[in-house]
Amino acid sequence: MQDHLLSELGQQLRVDSVRAAAAAGSGHPTSSMSAADLMAVLLANHLRYDFEQPRHPGNDHLVFSKGHASPLLYSMFKAAGAISDEELLTFRKLGSLLEGHPTPRLPWVDVATGSLGQGLPVGVGLALAHKRLERPDGANSRVWVLCGDSELAEGSVWEAFEHGCYEHLDNLTAIIDVNRLGQHGPTRHEWDLGAYARRMHAFGWHTIEIDGHDVAAVDRAYGEAASTVGRPTAIIAHTVKGRGVASVENREGMHGKPLPNPEEAVAELGGVREMAVPVLGPPAVSAGPPPGDGHLSLPRFDPGERVATRDAFGQALAALGTARGDVVVLDGEVGDSTRTEFFAKEHPERFFECYIAEQQLVAAAVGMQACGWLPYASTFAAFFTRAYDFVRMAAISRADLNLVGSHAGVAIGEDGPSQMGLEDLAAFRAVHGSTVLYPCDANQTAQLTAAMAEQSGIRYLRTTRGRTPVLYPPSERFPIGGSKLVRATDGDRVTVAAAGVTVPEAIAAADRLAGEGIPVRVIDLYSVKPVDAQTLRAAAELTGRLITAEDHHPEGGLGDAVLEAFCDGRPAPRTVRLAVRTMPVSATPEQQLSEAGIDAEAIAAAARELVGAAT
Amino acid sequence: MQDHLLSELGQQLRVDSVRAAAAAGSGHPTSSMSAADLMAVLLANHLRYDFEQPRHPGNDHLVFSKGHASPLLYSMFKAAGAISDEELLTFRKLGSLLEGHPTPRLPWVDVATGSLGQGLPVGVGLALAHKRLERPDGANSRVWVLCGDSELAEGSVWEAFEHGCYEHLDNLTAIIDVNRLGQHGPTRHEWDLGAYARRMHAFGWHTIEIDGHDVAAVDRAYGEAASTVGRPTAIIAHTVKGRGVASVENREGMHGKPLPNPEEAVAELGGVREMAVPVLGPPAVSAGPPPGDGHLSLPRFDPGERVATRDAFGQALAALGTARGDVVVLDGEVGDSTRTEFFAKEHPERFFECYIAEQQLVAAAVGMQACGWLPYASTFAAFFTRAYDFVRMAAISRADLNLVGSHAGVAIGEDGPSQMGLEDLAAFRAVHGSTVLYPCDANQTAQLTAAMAEQSGIRYLRTTRGRTPVLYPPSERFPIGGSKLVRATDGDRVTVAAAGVTVPEAIAAADRLAGEGIPVRVIDLYSVKPVDAQTLRAAAELTGRLITAEDHHPEGGLGDAVLEAFCDGRPAPRTVRLAVRTMPVSATPEQQLSEAGIDAEAIAAAARELVGAAT
Repeated sequence: MQDHLLSELGQQLRVDSVRAAAAAGSGHPTSSMSAADLMAVLLANHLRYDFEQPRHPGNDHLVFSKGHASPLLYSMFKAAGAISDEELLTFRKLGSLLEGHPTPRLPWVDVATGSLGQGLPVGVGLALAHKRLERPDGANSRVWVLCGDSELAEGSVWEAFEHGCYEHLDNLTAIIDVNRLGQHGPTRHEWDLGAYARRMHAFGWHTIEIDGHDVAAVDRAYGEAASTVGRPTAIIAHTVKGRGVASVENREGMHGKPLPNPEEAVAELGGVREMAVPVLGPPAVSAGPPPGDGHLSLPRFDPGERVATRDAFGQALAALGTARGDVVVLDGEVGDSTRTEFFAKEHPERFFECYIAEQQLVAAAVGMQACGWLPYASTFAAFFTRAYDFVRMAAISRADLNLVGSHAGVAIGEDGPSQMGLEDLAAFRAVHGSTVLYPCDANQTAQLTAAMAEQSGIRYLRTTRGRTPVLYPPSERFPIGGSKLVRATDGDRVTVAAAGVTVPEAIAAADRLAGEGIPVRVIDLYSVKPVDAQTLRAAAELTGRLITAEDHHPEGGLGDAVLEAFCDGRPAPRTVRLAVRTMPVSATPEQQLSEAGIDAEAIAAAARELVGAAT
Repeated sequence: MQDHLLSELGQQLRVDSVRAAAAAGSGHPTSSMSAADLMAVLLANHLRYDFEQPRHPGNDHLVFSKGHASPLLYSMFKAAGAISDEELLTFRKLGSLLEGHPTPRLPWVDVATGSLGQGLPVGVGLALAHKRLERPDGANSRVWVLCGDSELAEGSVWEAFEHGCYEHLDNLTAIIDVNRLGQHGPTRHEWDLGAYARRMHAFGWHTIEIDGHDVAAVDRAYGEAASTVGRPTAIIAHTVKGRGVASVENREGMHGKPLPNPEEAVAELGGVREMAVPVLGPPAVSAGPPPGDGHLSLPRFDPGERVATRDAFGQALAALGTARGDVVVLDGEVGDSTRTEFFAKEHPERFFECYIAEQQLVAAAVGMQACGWLPYASTFAAFFTRAYDFVRMAAISRADLNLVGSHAGVAIGEDGPSQMGLEDLAAFRAVHGSTVLYPCDANQTAQLTAAMAEQSGIRYLRTTRGRTPVLYPPSERFPIGGSKLVRATDGDRVTVAAAGVTVPEAIAAADRLAGEGIPVRVIDLYSVKPVDAQTLRAAAELTGRLITAEDHHPEGGLGDAVLEAFCDGRPAPRTVRLAVRTMPVSATPEQQLSEAGIDAEAIAAAARELVGAAT
């Protein structure tokens, strides 16, 4: 498309952004207007995308990291013929797919944005999938990420700059819309494009500084980005917030609200246009994950052995990688601890070292699943807290993601609380649509490692550092949402619900109590979410007394999950919760369980008290 | 101290690190040995610190961001005479203050470290406190942060580089121990000091590249850092992991474990030494937060008005800042939304704009509270998830911190789920020792904004975007751990526990149900943690039926908090939980509450069903 038409298209995108926000009565037209020319040129001359086949493997990817500029994105969709003008004006209304910030409810949106600083790390994941995973006949699709200037304050963006360069992602372009104004006032660097360029150049990126309203310069910059080899490109564009409407142009206090006089603004912008853009199509490719050998041969462990569940996870993951060609594994430079190194040894081409950058770790996984891969990302359970916002947003992205946290709980021992996942169950349970698993033995872990692949949404598996006894035979099955009765008689007087390291403790307590004439039922709740409400209810009905024991802080973990079973209006059992109620210090694993009051002795004491109190 | 003695001191620190890890049977001696010379020179010639007065306002600060090098830190404490050799050898044992990673249980440790990439952002907070907050007679204490090279992959570190330069923190020095090896293998940049220097220089820091085992060069570098004006300094030191012991020096697979032959290693290092270092004292100063006028004049709102709780928070915070001179406020570039801008207008000298960098936001607050200030850090509730690891670590730091999250829940309306805090109650409840508050009206918010200052630990207050009715008179008191009975008769048949936006909904439901002959008790649980178990139990005993209604996902929030009251073995009421069980989309606030099933209609329907089911 020629320059004067590109400028016209830019004006159309502005007009439509203004109209959409006006119809909604809210939204971010001024943040859309600054980037309108940048996006007009991209849409008309560079983006390769079949809007009728959003899953086409040769499509480029466009990520609006500045998700609040959604009116601009939707105006592009309209210009491309993907949505009607009528649909555009449903923006932000109940029932519309055009939400305040883009989500994959729209088929042309790969990932949800709106929490700033996430688009570029996700873009790294998309670019990695195409660059490192595609089969030889796959297209090297380009990934274009539109970033705001304010969001460059987020450290996650710099994790992405570092990783994008390290992985030589020359199929990735960051388009920085430097409109000088954040939500509240000027950004740190305002229009000092050089400040951004110096930083990005130091991080190894090719940088281009341009006037973001000079469509010819924008066009040249995209061409330069596409032809740059061996490293990603950042296009740093000087733009004006609210560009084109004098009453809001470059003015503070105009963020995140419709224009004061939208009709006048539309007139000032030259009125409504109806340009239809013939978007370049993607090349014909047949890319997609390879099949694998289809034969899943999970590791098998003998009951009575002592095996760390992290070891079982690592072995199972390697086996799953052989069976399924779509499994990819991402590590936060702790693969020797989490045991993803077992996978790395067998499938190095599908192993991604993300170094100690947990936000990039999760974001890369989100990007890869958007390209049809099945990611397992792993670090210490404690350090997933670093990426919690990315996990939350991944759920909004409807991402299918496996996250595996090792070194859970006080059971790690001497390393102390900074390394202990003690909030992870709460954090992951609270994520919409999540699955939360906490196996207690090696065979169970192997089964769940494979089973989680079949779930949708965010799935979290928690593993243990130290060795624990193998309780189940390799043939045992562990459906998600189920549980195991590991001790049960018809005369049980107390139920103990445990998971992970507290299961062997509960068994030891039950054996001790049986000798004292107090029969105790023990439930292994390996599926923390969804929880096996039916089994819990039956046990509660029988015993009337319930103890929960967990290696986690008392809030939001197993104890809370168990009580979900009793929130449908039926009577609940008398309940005591054992959990980590103090701030741990350094000590041996055994001392830790004892100090926290979640070992066999504590469970037995609680059972005795509960039986005594109620008799 | 002269060079040859400095080298000797370096060897002593290595020997003691090796011995401590050997005695513990775990720990990170090789990561200590690389930085031993760097720390020897700092301790002997540059650190100004009175170990007998760790709270002396003139003290420098030393933060071990690479907290796993704790053996080195404790060996420094021994060399300074702060601990005995006997205590050193208690490392990592139950009962010892010398934990696997440093915590403020030791009086000379400001903040807990061990989650990498946190020390420098916290250092920015410490340096800011001294640079911008100290009274004229206060010393400009220096802040020295020892960083590993691996942790430079964390984006949080680059938030700190950006902010440290922006605030001209020439009292801050980052000491980068570039020992080339991470936990699992080589770092991205190995010994390419220039790669780090270019990045830090681009971020505006003064950089010095040195051989980290050349004590004369190290000494000069510290002097240069101390005399550099207007910007912080990064000393990038080439070091060797395991330096001094041939069997481990620069070798992979030697991370995080005692040396194979500690006695031989000690001999190779020249044997045990007992050098005592006379550390430079701090200058005599009388710094510390100024008092304020001592008169707290909270805003007062008339019942029947409609006021957003975020507005009440902002006004109360400004008033608190007048009454107390130690209140500081930190913003993540959303001060116009959170209303911390009200404080900024009245007390600009104590207002800190951290831009969109939530990790730096929380870390700066942690640093400031370590200097005796009372920080309130605020952003959207949703975006505190970005800093969850920092909050978790702040609890381990025993930090006293006020965090205020606005725009909670689906009640924000059209902006959609990326902006909605729907996991925040779960996340904050799971933090050890936390306080979680969720007020429903303006007077309550004002009171709680002031009251939270008196708590210890992490306190979280959740505010609402839209206007809600003022329910209480300004004279009402709201003790933390309490609740309010807003509807109650002796014949109540159902209890509704609500907080925040669901309180007016519960009241509307109760009024409707009263007309239908179903008297309903409504409890305003503004204190989510600690929760008012006594009132809940009394209500449950009377009504036998309980409904919880919350603008949050069902896991870990109000519903779970309420059930805590029934986990002491006593009978629990029949319970139904109303919460946000679907992924929200864009809609008006009223539509959102209705769609989520947490509005008056949904509460009334649940009550009718509960009464019907049980009769």
